Amino acid sequence: MKNTFGSSVCVTLFGESHGAAIGAVLDGMAPGIPVDKELIRHQLDLRRPAGRTGTARREQDAFEIVSGVFEGRTTGTPIAILIPNEDTRSGDYRRGAVRPGHADFAARMKYHGFEDYRGGGHFSGRITAALTAAGAIAIGALRRQGIRIGTHVARCAGIQDVPFTDPEKQIEQLSNTAFAVLDAEKGEAMRAAIEKAAEAGDSVGGVLETIVAGMPAGVGEPWFDTLEGMLARALFSIPAVKGVEFGAGFALAEMRGSEANDPWILKDGKPETRTNRNGGINGGITNGMPIVFRCAVKPTPSIALPQETVSADGMKEETLTITGRHDPAIVHRARVVADSVTALTLCDALALRFGTDWLRGDPA
Amino acid sequence: MKNTFGSSVCVTLFGESHGAAIGAVLDGMAPGIPVDKELIRHQLDLRRPAGRTGTARREQDAFEIVSGVFEGRTTGTPIAILIPNEDTRSGDYRRGAVRPGHADFAARMKYHGFEDYRGGGHFSGRITAALTAAGAIAIGALRRQGIRIGTHVARCAGIQDVPFTDPEKQIEQLSNTAFAVLDAEKGEAMRAAIEKAAEAGDSVGGVLETIVAGMPAGVGEPWFDTLEGMLARALFSIPAVKGVEFGAGFALAEMRGSEANDPWILKDGKPETRTNRNGGINGGITNGMPIVFRCAVKPTPSIALPQETVSADGMKEETLTITGRHDPAIVHRARVVADSVTALTLCDALALRFGTDWLRGDPA
Amino acid sequence: MKNTFGSSVCVTLFGESHGAAIGAVLDGMAPGIPVDKELIRHQLDLRRPAGRTGTARREQDAFEIVSGVFEGRTTGTPIAILIPNEDTRSGDYRRGAVRPGHADFAARMKYHGFEDYRGGGHFSGRITAALTAAGAIAIGALRRQGIRIGTHVARCAGIQDVPFTDPEKQIEQLSNTAFAVLDAEKGEAMRAAIEKAAEAGDSVGGVLETIVAGMPAGVGEPWFDTLEGMLARALFSIPAVKGVEFGAGFALAEMRGSEANDPWILKDGKPETRTNRNGGINGGITNGMPIVFRCAVKPTPSIALPQETVSADGMKEETLTITGRHDPAIVHRARVVADSVTALTLCDALALRFGTDWLRGDPA
Amino acid sequence: MKNTFGSSVCVTLFGESHGAAIGAVLDGMAPGIPVDKELIRHQLDLRRPAGRTGTARREQDAFEIVSGVFEGRTTGTPIAILIPNEDTRSGDYRRGAVRPGHADFAARMKYHGFEDYRGGGHFSGRITAALTAAGAIAIGALRRQGIRIGTHVARCAGIQDVPFTDPEKQIEQLSNTAFAVLDAEKGEAMRAAIEKAAEAGDSVGGVLETIVAGMPAGVGEPWFDTLEGMLARALFSIPAVKGVEFGAGFALAEMRGSEANDPWILKDGKPETRTNRNGGINGGITNGMPIVFRCAVKPTPSIALPQETVSADGMKEETLTITGRHDPAIVHRARVVADSVTALTLCDALALRFGTDWLRGDPA
Repeated sequence: MKNTFGSSVCVTLFGESHGAAIGAVLDGMAPGIPVDKELIRHQLDLRRPAGRTGTARREQDAFEIVSGVFEGRTTGTPIAILIPNEDTRSGDYRRGAVRPGHADFAARMKYHGFEDYRGGGHFSGRITAALTAAGAIAIGALRRQGIRIGTHVARCAGIQDVPFTDPEKQIEQLSNTAFAVLDAEKGEAMRAAIEKAAEAGDSVGGVLETIVAGMPAGVGEPWFDTLEGMLARALFSIPAVKGVEFGAGFALAEMRGSEANDPWILKDGKPETRTNRNGGINGGITNGMPIVFRCAVKPTPSIALPQETVSADGMKEETLTITGRHDPAIVHRARVVADSVTALTLCDALALRFGTDWLRGDPA
Repeated sequence: MKNTFGSSVCVTLFGESHGAAIGAVLDGMAPGIPVDKELIRHQLDLRRPAGRTGTARREQDAFEIVSGVFEGRTTGTPIAILIPNEDTRSGDYRRGAVRPGHADFAARMKYHGFEDYRGGGHFSGRITAALTAAGAIAIGALRRQGIRIGTHVARCAGIQDVPFTDPEKQIEQLSNTAFAVLDAEKGEAMRAAIEKAAEAGDSVGGVLETIVAGMPAGVGEPWFDTLEGMLARALFSIPAVKGVEFGAGFALAEMRGSEANDPWILKDGKPETRTNRNGGINGGITNGMPIVFRCAVKPTPSIALPQETVSADGMKEETLTITGRHDPAIVHRARVVADSVTALTLCDALALRFGTDWLRGDPA
Repeated sequence: MKNTFGSSVCVTLFGESHGAAIGAVLDGMAPGIPVDKELIRHQLDLRRPAGRTGTARREQDAFEIVSGVFEGRTTGTPIAILIPNEDTRSGDYRRGAVRPGHADFAARMKYHGFEDYRGGGHFSGRITAALTAAGAIAIGALRRQGIRIGTHVARCAGIQDVPFTDPEKQIEQLSNTAFAVLDAEKGEAMRAAIEKAAEAGDSVGGVLETIVAGMPAGVGEPWFDTLEGMLARALFSIPAVKGVEFGAGFALAEMRGSEANDPWILKDGKPETRTNRNGGINGGITNGMPIVFRCAVKPTPSIALPQETVSADGMKEETLTITGRHDPAIVHRARVVADSVTALTLCDALALRFGTDWLRGDPA
Repeated sequence: MKNTFGSSVCVTLFGESHGAAIGAVLDGMAPGIPVDKELIRHQLDLRRPAGRTGTARREQDAFEIVSGVFEGRTTGTPIAILIPNEDTRSGDYRRGAVRPGHADFAARMKYHGFEDYRGGGHFSGRITAALTAAGAIAIGALRRQGIRIGTHVARCAGIQDVPFTDPEKQIEQLSNTAFAVLDAEKGEAMRAAIEKAAEAGDSVGGVLETIVAGMPAGVGEPWFDTLEGMLARALFSIPAVKGVEFGAGFALAEMRGSEANDPWILKDGKPETRTNRNGGINGGITNGMPIVFRCAVKPTPSIALPQETVSADGMKEETLTITGRHDPAIVHRARVVADSVTALTLCDALALRFGTDWLRGDPA
């Protein structure tokens, strides 16, 4: 399995940046789930570059659901979603020097030069639009079961957002925020910093923090299909993600056990942990607390500054200056992809645990 | 797939801490690879608690290769390895209160109380001995192809080891070091800090850093089976690992693109990058540079200090004081597991890419 | 994995008979393989109903390759193929009584009535057009390696075709024959018998026999991923296939060992078997002889005769008379699907064995 | 995945005929299911050669459950079962000429001569003892849900058993019959015919027919993971199985649609089909009728008669006379393996459909 993931709910991706279309096939979703096209539209819009901090490329991301939805509901058979590529100016691209920080050299070693190099081809962040559309269906399904996912830009260009304090409410708020921060002022500061980097011909990265509220306990496996491992595998597919940590993550390495262990207490007669440094997962399995994780997003590799590199054939050294439209940051756009990938992975884990009808939320 | 991972080279784990035996089945290894029992023995010894910083539990970790090896070489059919549990004092354990930081509560929600709770059961770190034995065979196979893996304790109890400077030589050196640091003095300081935590009835965590030298370019997939995703999925199986980052990882989030992008240069006429902030992987695919990643290891959850928790049935609050033998740190033991999991994952990715005979290293 | 199969070369299917389009995603094909659109066109034409023995539904099966092909060659990334549904007269269909021999009742029990019932929905034989298009690319790739696949209607409506005598030549001949028989006269008799059944408002079935020439020895696994098991799993996806047998198949059950065992001899100094009653596979692994198998294809379940059945809700008994356009036989159309499914499965098995570049046929 | 099958309930096999032990790992079974060691013992005894018609090799097939069972019930974690090889007389075997009908040549091409050739190694029918033990646990679990599986020798050495008429009762009866026929006289005739073949230094084959009663409707997938495809993939792992057909199977190819379609009727107000020519599966999904299929079993390839073959290195022609102990028929022993493989596959399909707790049969 390569461009497919999942065991019970599965996603297959296809497409290149400058091909006819990109798309996704979402298989294994429970039948009878209402498909909210507005939500798909909304999520695609959140992913699109916008305002000051986006690229000049403007596409409607018109999507078409080709199969698997009938009379407004999932049929239970594969849902194919197609997103045509409209605004493709291939003239902007030709097989040039290896772009540092991009997959150009690695791709050539794998595909022997037969890869579609235009605009990053199959490696383009644009492919995440298809993931986003599929993810929107998964997000809609999870909501019916009271499971909600939210991601904010926890850190960008050295500026830190405030932490989650009231997840349920903040998730709701984030779903309607283009630049997803919990503190709007921090967001303004981040955008200013992004703009400043752009003016310098450079780019910035950041950290995304995701929280999942309402996840039932007892989901995941002790080895290999640990919920952490399943999520991480999917999250590392998001271009530019170079690190994933759960709960307190790397900070746990600095703590003592007495600090890292989350004490169990009774709240309204039900067990929960006082802190959540393990991020809702123990031994690979959900413990009923919110799932919390962070993704490190590296700065956009396409920058306007001249860069040291080698020619496409790897034979001589060159200086490369990338022209054209490019995001000075993608961390704020990637957050909707993080939500999507999380939703798809959780649907898979839940369907494996509780059966393929569970996401319907109806009596069997 | 649950306790199995891999598509071409696969590992299945089984066993509980206090059952008859633990073990692993390693399937899909190329035929004809010499199996070095000394190396398996050596790796198992590195994993065992030792000296001042280990638990009081002492086992030989005698292992038996039950199948898949004939006349000292792999046959190409499944290799089953069995490690009997000898020193199991079940009297030390009974189903008590939920242990904070452990999988007890999550497991109960998944297995409805039928899980073998003795000594952590199937969640016990002891199961990693089986992973280590299987990993040793993979490590031996990779060495024949010039691929070498080394992991050091980059950080423990707030003390930082020096970075890799001469990977090939340092990997060799680490393979013979019980407490794996590059700077022996840092190691002494770490051990002293571990001891100090133990005296306080507490435990410490740390960070492991792994480097893979000699990996060919062009291995991995752009989506889902990114090499980062494949490795992370496997690494999160190591009990206590709560974060995985590649290259500069979370530090990339603080950099600008001009700093994060690794410039390509020619060295002896061959392309390589001047820095390696992407950790040898671009777009999910190896680029020929060393693979570098770090794992956050949380402090051992079993501590001697009294802890706030709930009863096994989750009905009332309790104070728990854990007695018996427990490691005040496992980060230094986990490093051999990190090596093993890495080796197994790379064998799988390489066999997928180059075929099942590639690891033989012979002409087809 | 549901609508996806394969481990290294994978196919995902989607679409419903009366939706916007059907399609397939073919992932994992080696990069650099020329994609022959004429061959795809040709294979789709062979699958289409034609002449006297076909349905009245006429579609061009216009296909579009949406991704994964660049400058006429495979890129190595997922190839998405889309076939729009043009001639869909949904007025012909409404959710009526359960059609005997169809999936109607089983689908309702699985999808709770949310399935797209029009024209068989996702169960429609039409979906095999997408398999056929994907299969054509696989067939083209295998030919470059000297592996050729041919299927004939070995039996239909009680009439038997002659057996293969000169596979290489006959495979070539079959690839250009609309009604695939080795003896044209037998084909005429079969078509007459089909017509006769159609006149009686009834339908007929048959047996397909497939031969694969040029397959290397040593491919397949001893357990579970036996080449027989891999092929059978894929072949049973072809609607109406209810039996699969390899070599002499069920006839082997009547033989003695001395007759069933294929004696080994040397031919031009190389080992081969005098007979091929094991169909080129021993112990799940190819032995270098042609792979031979047969599929039992049941008669088309849609017939004009009145049939005893129950209502859509399963609450009362009804008599059903199916009107509209339906094939009196599909065995002759299914043969190109058998070729396709075989080619896709073999590409997967070969890529697993020899690596993802092997199908390129170039030096590494 | 090679020696592993299943997505939710998985089995991994290992071992060689003359190694230390063979075994299986059964993963994903619901927790809390009582494990009946008597049933495992009983099933292993049914598989063992016995009486007149068996080989001279006598083993207790002592089995040990190494993990995954605690206080007599499944824990939900992997169940490893070990069966030591005791009566291994390696002196009987050495790497001799290629045995016709065996995997010797195919194995050499795959494993380059590194395979354990003694007694068939990993290809030995003996490995099915491990499948049988794992299968017994699955059979026990299914019984709790009212699902029962029975297989009889429908045909052997040209003699036909009577068909199933009262499945529930006959399944019970078969489970206690060493030579599994529905008509004891037919069984006597078969045994006489087997004996006669043995006296001639030859062997015979047969056909197994399996019925599954109590299977719920709505299980299986329309493409690739059709229940037919899942079962066939597993059944072709049984050594000597060369054909699998469902319902009327190949006979369907001779019928007209009006005969092949199973009419739906109401029985006690519930829909069922009057006939069952589709074997309980439509469109890859169970329809609530009993699942029925047949496997063609070829004659044992090891015969006493001299055979034409080539030397182990494939360089020269030889005449081979096999000595030692060998079954003149295995069809009657294979039936318990068919039951086992069926049970394991159904557990997987049911767990995927209804979740991992379903097999417990308890309220969630």
